[in-house]
Amino acid sequence: MALNSVLTYAHALLKQAVGPGETVVDATVGNGHDTIFLATLVGPSGRVLGFDIQKEALKATETQLVLTGQTRQVTLINDGHEHLKNHLTADQQIGGAIFNLGYLPGGDKQLTTQSKTTLEAVKQAINLLRRGGLVVVVVYPGHPAGRLEQDALLTAVKALDQQTYNVLQYAFINQIHEPPFLLAVERK
Amino acid sequence: MALNSVLTYAHALLKQAVGPGETVVDATVGNGHDTIFLATLVGPSGRVLGFDIQKEALKATETQLVLTGQTRQVTLINDGHEHLKNHLTADQQIGGAIFNLGYLPGGDKQLTTQSKTTLEAVKQAINLLRRGGLVVVVVYPGHPAGRLEQDALLTAVKALDQQTYNVLQYAFINQIHEPPFLLAVERK
Repeated sequence: MALNSVLTYAHALLKQAVGPGETVVDATVGNGHDTIFLATLVGPSGRVLGFDIQKEALKATETQLVLTGQTRQVTLINDGHEHLKNHLTADQQIGGAIFNLGYLPGGDKQLTTQSKTTLEAVKQAINLLRRGGLVVVVVYPGHPAGRLEQDALLTAVKALDQQTYNVLQYAFINQIHEPPFLLAVERK
Repeated sequence: MALNSVLTYAHALLKQAVGPGETVVDATVGNGHDTIFLATLVGPSGRVLGFDIQKEALKATETQLVLTGQTRQVTLINDGHEHLKNHLTADQQIGGAIFNLGYLPGGDKQLTTQSKTTLEAVKQAINLLRRGGLVVVVVYPGHPAGRLEQDALLTAVKALDQQTYNVLQYAFINQIHEPPFLLAVERK
């Protein structure tokens, strides 16, 4: 298949943008899938900051990291991603960040990311990007909180200065239910 | 840069979908850039049908093909792309097609592709796709005829059955002027 799924494409873009030794952010650890992907990308000399407000998600991810021998470069942080910048030094930049919004698969569907905090966190991540760095956001407009996130995010990223950022929307548009889509913000 | 331009990405997708020996279509030959790209993809055992209503565009492309030694696999057709299916046998399928809409760069800006004929041609190309084949359309909504094409095309491709087709929109959304965007239709 020539057309990649949204999540596959999000990973492919990060793989092009991020290299070994870099600092990157998984803003929504969840099942740890993206955390492990980022840990592989940056390698043992890099650094992944992984955020989740659900302790059980971080615990399960910790186990995965031990099993794959990637604990060294990952710091799991039990805090809201809207506090991202508090966990970096003032002059620290990042090479990339991923937001995979919505609720934890298999978890409590009431515990979903929220428009206000998501928007704040995405803005912080964009501001922290080095030149050529990339923030990717997988948005799920098919549930009420996701629809609000979609609207808030689209308004914010469309307003980003085109001299400084490229903003890509990658979306499958012939599906009856509202499927997830990708937003990618690259600092030029 | 991790984020590809619309035209680079259109070519990358076709490269993944189309192989040597296939039949493909350049529905808007113009300066011949895409024709030569397709001729390279399908190789000497393949077949490229190139459409343009402007004779001078076909002449210039013919020269390019001679210079690059790719005349063998290319048939240039001085006809509107809405007659695409007339130039194929009834059971012939295609692996891919490209539409690069608007006017010929450096040519007469009054001579632009038109909503009605574009829509008819795109529909025919989609119907001719083999499984796994891909139609890519680069849309320029920044001029009046382009805006009409955008609206007609979006309505049509959004309505394609998701069981049979994937429809991707790839668009840069933070630019003041309306930049070209990509539609890609893949037969599953």
